[in-house]
Amino acid sequence: MAKVYIALIHHPVYNKKKDIVSTCITGVDLHDIARSALTFGVRKYFVVNPMPAQLKFADRIISCWKKEESFTHNWTRAEAFRLVELAENLDEVLGKLKNPIVVATSAQPRGRVKFKKVRALIKKSRRPVLILFGTGWGMADKLFLKVDYTLEPVNGISTYNHLSVRSAVAIILDRLLGG
Amino acid sequence: MAKVYIALIHHPVYNKKKDIVSTCITGVDLHDIARSALTFGVRKYFVVNPMPAQLKFADRIISCWKKEESFTHNWTRAEAFRLVELAENLDEVLGKLKNPIVVATSAQPRGRVKFKKVRALIKKSRRPVLILFGTGWGMADKLFLKVDYTLEPVNGISTYNHLSVRSAVAIILDRLLGG
Repeated sequence: MAKVYIALIHHPVYNKKKDIVSTCITGVDLHDIARSALTFGVRKYFVVNPMPAQLKFADRIISCWKKEESFTHNWTRAEAFRLVELAENLDEVLGKLKNPIVVATSAQPRGRVKFKKVRALIKKSRRPVLILFGTGWGMADKLFLKVDYTLEPVNGISTYNHLSVRSAVAIILDRLLGG
Repeated sequence: MAKVYIALIHHPVYNKKKDIVSTCITGVDLHDIARSALTFGVRKYFVVNPMPAQLKFADRIISCWKKEESFTHNWTRAEAFRLVELAENLDEVLGKLKNPIVVATSAQPRGRVKFKKVRALIKKSRRPVLILFGTGWGMADKLFLKVDYTLEPVNGISTYNHLSVRSAVAIILDRLLGG
Protein backbone atom coordinates (compact mmCIF):
# COMPACT_ATOMS: atom_id res chain seq x y z
CA MET A 1 0.00 0.00 0.00
CA ALA A 2 1.24 3.48 -0.83
CA LYS A 3 2.32 5.96 1.79
CA VAL A 4 -0.26 8.74 1.63
CA TYR A 5 0.43 12.42 2.20
CA ILE A 6 -1.91 15.38 2.04
CA ALA A 7 -1.34 19.06 1.34
CA LEU A 8 -3.63 21.98 2.08
CA ILE A 9 -2.98 24.65 -0.54
CA HIS A 10 -3.39 28.33 0.34
CA HIS A 11 -1.74 29.68 -2.81
CA PRO A 12 -2.27 29.93 -5.68
CA VAL A 13 -6.05 29.69 -5.16
CA TYR A 14 -9.02 31.70 -6.41
CA ASN A 15 -11.27 34.06 -4.52
CA LYS A 16 -14.93 34.37 -5.51
CA LYS A 17 -14.06 36.89 -8.25
CA LYS A 18 -11.59 34.42 -9.78
CA ASP A 19 -8.58 36.50 -8.75
CA ILE A 20 -5.54 34.52 -7.70
CA VAL A 21 -4.97 35.05 -3.98
CA SER A 22 -3.42 33.55 -0.87
CA THR A 23 -5.88 32.47 1.76
CA CYS A 24 -5.12 32.42 5.46
CA ILE A 25 -4.11 29.43 7.52
CA THR A 26 -6.65 28.83 10.28
CA GLY A 27 -6.18 27.09 13.60
CA VAL A 28 -9.24 24.95 13.00
CA ASP A 29 -7.85 23.70 9.66
CA LEU A 30 -4.61 22.73 11.38
CA HIS A 31 -6.52 20.98 14.14
CA ASP A 32 -9.33 19.19 12.32
CA ILE A 33 -7.34 18.04 9.32
CA ALA A 34 -4.45 16.80 11.48
CA ARG A 35 -6.92 14.64 13.40
CA SER A 36 -8.44 13.28 10.18
CA ALA A 37 -4.96 12.63 8.80
CA LEU A 38 -3.88 10.62 11.84
CA THR A 39 -7.15 8.66 11.91
CA PHE A 40 -6.61 7.49 8.32
CA GLY A 41 -2.91 6.73 8.52
CA VAL A 42 -1.70 9.72 6.50
CA ARG A 43 2.08 10.15 6.91
CA LYS A 44 2.32 13.93 6.75
CA TYR A 45 -0.06 16.85 6.46
CA PHE A 46 1.64 19.65 4.56
CA VAL A 47 0.27 23.15 5.02
CA VAL A 48 1.30 25.23 2.01
CA ASN A 49 1.43 29.03 2.19
CA PRO A 50 4.04 31.43 0.75
CA MET A 51 3.58 34.25 3.26
CA PRO A 52 6.21 34.53 5.99
CA ALA A 53 3.79 35.97 8.54
CA GLN A 54 1.35 33.13 7.91
CA LEU A 55 4.08 30.51 8.28
CA LYS A 56 5.22 32.13 11.49
CA PHE A 57 1.68 32.13 12.86
CA ALA A 58 1.16 28.48 11.98
CA ASP A 59 4.57 27.50 13.30
CA ARG A 60 3.76 29.05 16.64
CA ILE A 61 0.61 26.96 17.00
CA ILE A 62 2.27 23.76 15.79
CA SER A 63 5.32 24.20 18.03
CA CYS A 64 3.12 24.77 21.05
CA TRP A 65 1.33 21.50 20.48
CA LYS A 66 4.58 19.60 19.95
CA LYS A 67 5.85 20.45 23.46
CA GLU A 68 5.87 17.74 26.14
CA GLU A 69 3.34 19.49 28.35
CA SER A 70 0.84 19.62 25.51
CA PHE A 71 0.71 15.86 25.54
CA THR A 72 -0.38 15.99 29.15
CA HIS A 73 -2.98 18.63 28.46
CA ASN A 74 -4.54 17.06 25.37
CA TRP A 75 -2.65 14.12 23.94
CA THR A 76 -5.17 13.54 21.15
CA ARG A 77 -4.47 16.97 19.71
CA ALA A 78 -0.73 16.88 20.35
CA GLU A 79 -0.42 13.49 18.68
CA ALA A 80 -2.20 14.74 15.57
CA PHE A 81 -0.07 17.88 15.34
CA ARG A 82 3.05 15.72 14.93
CA LEU A 83 1.97 15.13 11.34
CA VAL A 84 1.84 18.79 10.39
CA GLU A 85 4.63 20.31 8.32
CA LEU A 86 4.80 23.74 6.72
CA ALA A 87 5.89 24.50 3.15
CA GLU A 88 6.02 27.65 1.07
CA ASN A 89 4.75 26.11 -2.16
CA LEU A 90 3.79 22.85 -3.83
CA ASP A 91 7.23 22.36 -5.44
CA GLU A 92 8.76 22.27 -1.97
CA VAL A 93 6.34 19.52 -0.97
CA LEU A 94 7.04 17.54 -4.16
CA GLY A 95 10.76 17.86 -3.44
CA LYS A 96 10.32 16.19 -0.06
CA LEU A 97 8.65 13.11 -1.53
CA LYS A 98 10.07 10.40 -3.80
CA ASN A 99 8.34 10.63 -7.16
CA PRO A 100 4.81 10.88 -5.77
CA ILE A 101 1.59 10.31 -7.64
CA VAL A 102 -0.23 13.61 -7.29
CA VAL A 103 -4.01 13.55 -6.89
CA ALA A 104 -5.96 16.80 -6.85
CA THR A 105 -9.39 17.22 -5.35
CA SER A 106 -11.94 19.75 -6.44
CA ALA A 107 -15.52 20.72 -5.69
CA GLN A 108 -15.86 21.61 -9.38
CA PRO A 109 -16.81 18.93 -11.90
CA ARG A 110 -13.35 19.17 -13.55
CA GLY A 111 -12.32 15.93 -11.92
CA ARG A 112 -13.54 12.68 -13.42
CA VAL A 113 -11.42 10.03 -11.74
CA LYS A 114 -13.57 7.83 -9.55
CA PHE A 115 -12.86 7.36 -5.86
CA LYS A 116 -12.82 3.63 -6.48
CA LYS A 117 -9.94 3.98 -8.92
CA VAL A 118 -7.79 6.11 -6.62
CA ARG A 119 -8.54 3.80 -3.70
CA ALA A 120 -7.28 0.85 -5.74
CA LEU A 121 -4.26 2.86 -6.86
CA ILE A 122 -3.30 3.61 -3.26
CA LYS A 123 -3.68 -0.06 -2.38
CA LYS A 124 -1.35 -1.27 -5.16
CA SER A 125 1.14 1.53 -5.63
CA ARG A 126 4.72 1.46 -4.37
CA ARG A 127 5.03 5.17 -5.07
CA PRO A 128 3.84 7.64 -2.43
CA VAL A 129 0.53 9.36 -3.11
CA LEU A 130 0.07 13.06 -2.42
CA ILE A 131 -3.50 14.38 -2.23
CA LEU A 132 -4.05 18.12 -2.72
CA PHE A 133 -6.86 20.09 -1.14
CA GLY A 134 -7.56 23.68 -2.11
CA THR A 135 -8.90 26.52 -0.01
CA GLY A 136 -10.80 29.65 -1.02
CA TRP A 137 -12.70 29.03 -4.27
CA GLY A 138 -10.31 26.30 -5.34
CA MET A 139 -6.77 25.80 -6.58
CA ALA A 140 -5.59 27.86 -9.55
CA ASP A 141 -5.68 26.12 -12.92
CA LYS A 142 -1.90 26.12 -13.28
CA LEU A 143 -1.52 23.81 -10.27
CA PHE A 144 -3.46 21.15 -12.10
CA LEU A 145 -0.59 20.90 -14.61
CA LYS A 146 1.46 19.24 -11.85
CA VAL A 147 -1.24 16.71 -11.09
CA ASP A 148 -1.60 13.11 -12.31
CA TYR A 149 -5.27 12.64 -11.45
CA THR A 150 -8.16 14.84 -10.39
CA LEU A 151 -10.75 13.12 -8.25
CA GLU A 152 -14.44 13.45 -8.99
CA PRO A 153 -16.15 15.88 -6.60
CA VAL A 154 -17.85 14.69 -3.42
CA ASN A 155 -21.51 14.73 -4.24
CA GLY A 156 -24.21 14.38 -1.67
CA ILE A 157 -27.93 14.15 -2.29
CA SER A 158 -28.70 17.76 -3.14
CA THR A 159 -27.13 19.89 -5.86
CA TYR A 160 -25.48 21.96 -3.13
CA ASN A 161 -21.76 21.25 -3.18
CA HIS A 162 -20.07 23.61 -0.75
CA LEU A 163 -18.61 21.56 2.04
CA SER A 164 -16.00 23.18 4.24
CA VAL A 165 -12.51 21.99 3.31
CA ARG A 166 -12.26 20.26 6.73
CA SER A 167 -15.37 18.21 6.01
CA ALA A 168 -14.27 17.48 2.44
CA VAL A 169 -10.88 16.21 3.65
CA ALA A 170 -12.57 13.94 6.20
CA ILE A 171 -14.94 12.45 3.65
CA ILE A 172 -12.28 12.00 0.97
CA LEU A 173 -9.83 10.32 3.33
CA ASP A 174 -12.62 8.04 4.52
CA ARG A 175 -13.59 7.12 0.96
CA LEU A 176 -9.97 6.45 -0.04
CA LEU A 177 -8.61 4.89 3.15
CA GLY A 178 -11.50 4.06 5.46
CA GLY A 179 -12.56 0.54 6.44
CA MET B 1 -36.74 7.33 2.09
CA ALA B 2 -36.82 8.73 5.60
CA LYS B 3 -36.48 12.43 6.31
CA VAL B 4 -33.19 12.77 8.17
CA TYR B 5 -32.48 15.22 10.95
CA ILE B 6 -29.32 15.74 13.00
CA ALA B 7 -28.74 17.14 16.46
CA LEU B 8 -25.48 18.38 17.98
CA ILE B 9 -25.67 17.77 21.72
CA HIS B 10 -23.87 20.11 24.13
CA HIS B 11 -25.51 18.80 27.29
CA PRO B 12 -25.44 16.43 29.00
CA VAL B 13 -21.95 15.42 27.81
CA TYR B 14 -18.77 14.38 29.59
CA ASN B 15 -15.54 16.28 30.01
CA LYS B 16 -12.25 14.39 30.13
CA LYS B 17 -12.68 13.68 33.85
CA LYS B 18 -16.09 12.11 33.18
CA ASP B 19 -17.97 14.96 34.84
CA ILE B 20 -21.26 15.90 33.21
CA VAL B 21 -20.91 19.34 31.67
CA SER B 22 -22.27 21.65 29.00
CA THR B 23 -19.90 22.41 26.19
CA CYS B 24 -19.92 25.63 24.21
CA ILE B 25 -21.49 26.18 20.83
CA THR B 26 -18.84 27.26 18.33
CA GLY B 27 -19.26 29.25 15.14
CA VAL B 28 -17.28 26.69 13.19
CA ASP B 29 -19.60 23.86 14.32
CA LEU B 30 -22.61 25.87 13.17
CA HIS B 31 -20.93 26.61 9.86
CA ASP B 32 -19.30 23.32 8.91
CA ILE B 33 -22.08 21.03 10.04
CA ALA B 34 -24.76 23.16 8.37
CA ARG B 35 -22.86 22.81 5.08
CA SER B 36 -22.54 19.05 5.52
CA ALA B 37 -26.21 18.80 6.40
CA LEU B 38 -27.32 20.65 3.29
CA THR B 39 -24.97 18.64 1.07
CA PHE B 40 -26.52 15.38 2.24
CA GLY B 41 -30.17 16.42 2.19
CA VAL B 42 -30.64 16.66 5.97
CA ARG B 43 -33.89 18.49 6.78
CA LYS B 44 -32.86 20.27 9.96
CA TYR B 45 -29.71 20.64 12.04
CA PHE B 46 -30.68 21.04 15.68
CA VAL B 47 -28.14 22.64 18.00
CA VAL B 48 -28.93 21.57 21.55
CA ASN B 49 -27.73 23.59 24.53
CA PRO B 50 -29.57 24.49 27.75
CA MET B 51 -27.72 27.71 28.54
CA PRO B 52 -29.55 30.95 27.71
CA ALA B 53 -26.34 32.87 27.00
CA GLN B 54 -25.18 30.16 24.60
CA LEU B 55 -28.51 30.12 22.79
CA LYS B 56 -28.43 33.90 22.51
CA PHE B 57 -24.90 33.78 21.08
CA ALA B 58 -25.85 31.12 18.53
CA ASP B 59 -29.07 32.88 17.62
CA ARG B 60 -27.17 36.06 16.84
CA ILE B 61 -24.91 34.26 14.38
CA ILE B 62 -27.76 32.29 12.79
CA SER B 63 -30.00 35.34 12.45
CA CYS B 64 -27.22 37.30 10.81
CA TRP B 65 -26.79 34.65 8.15
CA LYS B 66 -30.52 34.42 7.52
CA LYS B 67 -30.75 38.10 6.46
CA GLU B 68 -31.21 38.94 2.79
CA GLU B 69 -27.86 40.72 2.48
CA SER B 70 -26.04 37.64 3.71
CA PHE B 71 -27.20 35.80 0.63
CA THR B 72 -25.49 38.40 -1.49
CA HIS B 73 -22.31 38.22 0.54
CA ASN B 74 -21.99 34.45 0.74
CA TRP B 75 -25.01 32.51 -0.46
CA THR B 76 -23.41 29.14 0.16
CA ARG B 77 -23.15 29.87 3.87
CA ALA B 78 -26.51 31.62 4.12
CA GLU B 79 -28.27 28.74 2.38
CA ALA B 80 -26.78 26.25 4.81
CA PHE B 81 -27.71 28.29 7.86
CA ARG B 82 -31.39 27.99 6.93
CA LEU B 83 -31.26 24.44 8.27
CA VAL B 84 -30.06 25.40 11.74
CA GLU B 85 -32.51 25.41 14.65
CA LEU B 86 -31.79 25.83 18.35
CA ALA B 87 -33.20 23.71 21.16
CA GLU B 88 -32.63 23.59 24.90
CA ASN B 89 -32.60 19.80 25.23
CA LEU B 90 -33.11 16.55 23.37
CA ASP B 91 -36.75 16.22 24.50
CA GLU B 92 -37.55 19.48 22.77
CA VAL B 93 -36.08 18.12 19.53
CA LEU B 94 -37.99 14.84 19.87
CA GLY B 95 -41.19 16.84 20.40
CA LYS B 96 -40.71 18.62 17.07
CA LEU B 97 -40.50 15.37 15.10
CA LYS B 98 -43.16 12.72 14.47
CA ASN B 99 -42.10 9.52 16.20
CA PRO B 100 -38.51 9.57 15.00
CA ILE B 101 -36.09 6.67 14.99
CA VAL B 102 -33.22 7.94 17.11
CA VAL B 103 -29.68 6.92 16.15
CA ALA B 104 -26.77 7.87 18.38
CA THR B 105 -23.17 8.11 17.24
CA SER B 106 -20.16 7.59 19.44
CA ALA B 107 -16.40 7.45 19.12
CA GLN B 108 -16.48 4.77 21.84
CA PRO B 109 -16.97 1.13 20.93
CA ARG B 110 -20.37 1.09 22.69
CA GLY B 111 -22.15 1.19 19.36
CA ARG B 112 -22.40 -1.99 17.34
CA VAL B 113 -24.96 -1.22 14.66
CA LYS B 114 -23.31 -1.24 11.25
CA PHE B 115 -23.44 1.75 8.94
CA LYS B 116 -24.88 -0.55 6.26
CA LYS B 117 -27.86 -1.35 8.46
CA VAL B 118 -28.69 2.27 9.28
CA ARG B 119 -28.24 3.25 5.64
CA ALA B 120 -30.78 0.60 4.64
CA LEU B 121 -33.09 1.71 7.45
CA ILE B 122 -33.05 5.29 6.20
CA LYS B 123 -33.80 4.10 2.68
CA LYS B 124 -36.85 2.09 3.69
CA SER B 125 -38.30 3.89 6.69
CA ARG B 126 -41.37 6.10 6.58
CA ARG B 127 -40.53 7.43 10.03
CA PRO B 128 -38.10 10.35 10.32
CA VAL B 129 -34.58 9.50 11.48
CA LEU B 130 -32.77 11.70 14.00
CA ILE B 131 -29.00 11.27 14.30
CA LEU B 132 -27.32 12.48 17.49
CA PHE B 133 -23.75 13.76 17.66
CA GLY B 134 -22.06 14.47 20.96
CA THR B 135 -19.46 17.07 21.84
CA GLY B 136 -16.83 17.12 24.58
CA TRP B 137 -15.90 13.56 25.53
CA GLY B 138 -19.25 12.18 24.39
CA MET B 139 -22.90 12.16 25.35
CA ALA B 140 -23.84 11.16 28.88
CA ASP B 141 -24.96 7.56 29.35
CA LYS B 142 -28.53 8.58 30.26
CA LEU B 143 -29.09 10.01 26.78
CA PHE B 144 -28.56 6.59 25.30
CA LEU B 145 -31.75 5.43 27.04
CA LYS B 146 -33.70 7.55 24.53
CA VAL B 147 -31.94 6.02 21.57
CA ASP B 148 -33.06 3.18 19.28
CA TYR B 149 -29.67 2.39 17.73
CA THR B 150 -26.06 3.31 18.40
CA LEU B 151 -23.87 3.33 15.33
CA GLU B 152 -20.49 1.63 15.32
CA PRO B 153 -17.63 4.16 15.62
CA VAL B 154 -15.88 5.56 12.56
CA ASN B 155 -12.63 3.68 12.37
CA GLY B 156 -9.80 4.64 10.14
CA ILE B 157 -6.57 2.78 9.62
CA SER B 158 -4.81 3.57 12.86
CA THR B 159 -6.01 2.95 16.40
CA TYR B 160 -6.31 6.71 16.84
CA ASN B 161 -9.99 7.60 16.97
CA HIS B 162 -10.30 11.28 17.84
CA LEU B 163 -11.83 13.03 14.88
CA SER B 164 -13.27 16.47 15.44
CA VAL B 165 -17.07 16.33 15.64
CA ARG B 166 -17.26 18.34 12.39
CA SER B 167 -15.22 15.71 10.57
CA ALA B 168 -17.15 12.85 12.17
CA VAL B 169 -20.48 14.36 11.10
CA ALA B 170 -19.24 14.75 7.53
CA ILE B 171 -18.02 11.16 7.31
CA ILE B 172 -21.13 9.69 8.94
CA LEU B 173 -23.54 11.62 6.71
CA ASP B 174 -21.52 10.52 3.69
CA ARG B 175 -21.58 6.88 4.78
CA LEU B 176 -25.32 6.99 5.45
CA LEU B 177 -26.53 9.26 2.65
CA GLY B 178 -23.71 9.75 0.16
CA GLY B 179 -23.72 8.47 -3.42
